Amino acid sequence: MAVNLAPPDPASLHPVAGVELGVAMAGVRKANRRDLLLMRLGPGSTVAGVFTRNRFCAAPVTLAKRHLAVGGEVRGLVVNTGNANAGTGEDGLARAATVCEAVARSLGCAARQVLPFSTGVIMEPLPVERIVAGIPAAVADLRPDNWLGAAEAIMTTDTVPKAGSRRLHLSGGEVTVTGIAKGAGMIRPDMATMLGFIATDAQVPGEALEALVREAADSSFNCITVDGDTSTNDAFVVAASGASGVVAQSRADLDALGRAISEVAAFLAQAIVRDGEGATKFITLQIEGGRFGEECRRVAYAIAHSPLVKTAFFASDPNLGRILAAIGNAGIEDLDTSRLELYLDSVLVAANGGRHPDYREEMGVAALAKPEFTVRVSLHRGQATATVWTCDLSFDYVKINAEYRT
Amino acid sequence: MAVNLAPPDPASLHPVAGVELGVAMAGVRKANRRDLLLMRLGPGSTVAGVFTRNRFCAAPVTLAKRHLAVGGEVRGLVVNTGNANAGTGEDGLARAATVCEAVARSLGCAARQVLPFSTGVIMEPLPVERIVAGIPAAVADLRPDNWLGAAEAIMTTDTVPKAGSRRLHLSGGEVTVTGIAKGAGMIRPDMATMLGFIATDAQVPGEALEALVREAADSSFNCITVDGDTSTNDAFVVAASGASGVVAQSRADLDALGRAISEVAAFLAQAIVRDGEGATKFITLQIEGGRFGEECRRVAYAIAHSPLVKTAFFASDPNLGRILAAIGNAGIEDLDTSRLELYLDSVLVAANGGRHPDYREEMGVAALAKPEFTVRVSLHRGQATATVWTCDLSFDYVKINAEYRT
Repeated sequence: MAVNLAPPDPASLHPVAGVELGVAMAGVRKANRRDLLLMRLGPGSTVAGVFTRNRFCAAPVTLAKRHLAVGGEVRGLVVNTGNANAGTGEDGLARAATVCEAVARSLGCAARQVLPFSTGVIMEPLPVERIVAGIPAAVADLRPDNWLGAAEAIMTTDTVPKAGSRRLHLSGGEVTVTGIAKGAGMIRPDMATMLGFIATDAQVPGEALEALVREAADSSFNCITVDGDTSTNDAFVVAASGASGVVAQSRADLDALGRAISEVAAFLAQAIVRDGEGATKFITLQIEGGRFGEECRRVAYAIAHSPLVKTAFFASDPNLGRILAAIGNAGIEDLDTSRLELYLDSVLVAANGGRHPDYREEMGVAALAKPEFTVRVSLHRGQATATVWTCDLSFDYVKINAEYRT
Repeated sequence: MAVNLAPPDPASLHPVAGVELGVAMAGVRKANRRDLLLMRLGPGSTVAGVFTRNRFCAAPVTLAKRHLAVGGEVRGLVVNTGNANAGTGEDGLARAATVCEAVARSLGCAARQVLPFSTGVIMEPLPVERIVAGIPAAVADLRPDNWLGAAEAIMTTDTVPKAGSRRLHLSGGEVTVTGIAKGAGMIRPDMATMLGFIATDAQVPGEALEALVREAADSSFNCITVDGDTSTNDAFVVAASGASGVVAQSRADLDALGRAISEVAAFLAQAIVRDGEGATKFITLQIEGGRFGEECRRVAYAIAHSPLVKTAFFASDPNLGRILAAIGNAGIEDLDTSRLELYLDSVLVAANGGRHPDYREEMGVAALAKPEFTVRVSLHRGQATATVWTCDLSFDYVKINAEYRT
């Protein structure tokens, strides 16, 4: 059902020197399902991440942030699906710590060198014994060419594994950037908004890597929304193993590497929307002519979060007045509606406060019938712009979320 | 499909002296459907209203506000369904004015003494000739005992007509308060959020009536949400004909009359949620212990607007972690999640940042299986409270809105 999104060709996913991935069936929630991922990073790796801003942030998020703040070299990432370990209070923190300790014992490092991640049902105790029992199998499976297996192991309601890869030349030689992500519902921007892991074999100083992660998140995972819900567990982490021996330190090299990371991140973020729960359409919202980027984003999200707009997209019904109504609700007090222009792809739908005289319903029908289209809004009050990617709201969104736990 | 909402008994809807209602089939969008309502007010009436804050507010809203601002005695209200006359620019204003002029000719008053209201599809030209042609039939139908017919004539996706009535004694004698409303989708608070008309035969000074309208709106229509969309056309208007000869001027009389108006308004507002598009559950969100009312409302709306929470309610699935996640997204930066308590009716679900040890899933299942329940959140950071009424998100919401125009 995902919109123009095929499973990745395993051959396209370049291994990243210094990074190994192992998966296992721990039976966190269901038996016979790969639900545990271990990533082992070689010595000398740097790691940076951005995390959910939800006040009920999950125990593993709290712990991962603590471990990153300590500044010790990260050697392992452990991810389970089936249980979010969120809304679990102090007990949840203890359970996440137990998982880190078990991984640390297996990898021969300290617990603070392990970052934990969880995704799944909220407010249920993490079955820590089963996860710990699954770690040896994940360790045994560790290998560099396991990115597709890793992408599959972190899926929840995803229907397609999400992974992307790039190779590029820096001044010191060729490096690789490969990443995976999961997420299909509870997706809205506000820091990273799903689980995303990208690794490179370039050598990148920690502070520089932090900047690259933020830039990549702001142009990818922070530009998508499926349903306006921000998860308690969202995290986007980039690891640089340095195993290629190629150092990214000059502005030009960091820019080039940053572009590659951002490209992979944008591909993964868009893949999340294409595979949005119940999605049948992939919609780009392009807002321009705002006074500030913030007001452009408000307009974009007002459209993207309107159930009425999203159901009209689902129905391919050019009930485009709903878009105007959503824009009118974006909270721009002094918006001059008579100056605004609304385009569907290249079709001018509305201007001068109403429908454009040349617009004909069949033009709207033709645009909406496509699986991908762009809604462009020109506010004509400044130079700022914003782009947001979203999907429609279908019967299947309700079905998936009404039946999630059953 | 409406939740515990039966059509009103016509005998319970007391006529209001000085107010007559007439309906007609104008064929605005569909033939053989009563889609035009005329309310005639006797001389000496006072009228006050609150209107949508959507920046794309509809032409009739703009005109109704202008006519009210002029301060002339309002003698007629005209309402059409099938077309919202919103997103229609200057042409829309001219069409709304033409309707007012036609009504004014029929009633023998000035156009500025007529308030126009429209509801229906946005961004299509109002078929003003058909509405004007329908006015004589509406005039011929004018009578005081036509409240149920009026409630039916303003329905769009409503499945049940909404009308309520009260009689009360003021110091000068008995007066009547009767009202109708429509609305089932595109419902969220922010000033009045649907069409609501209440009339009383008490005599009320204009300024006092304005205060009563605001109070009534704030405790009724501004406390409901179906889908978070604020319509371009929302209006709530109260007319006081004075025809009973009973003057409401003392504080005590105004308080008593205000309570009755607020009661009718709250009944109508809750009826809108009970009849929310696709609704199968009626949910009261009661937030307490906030520092300010505003932060309590933010928490309530974060819950009420989360598609994940709403689909879980639909499924009677006590996936209550989704409520915690929604609260965490309410934007209260310094929220201490360990102090928060979450109740489902009288069941304590979460405390100390996680699930309460005494909570059992079957308790949540039992609460959610009911067609009406209360979600109570104690923030334990102050004395402020807020109450919001909402409904679940079902297959039928998508169906209704995907097929609205077809």
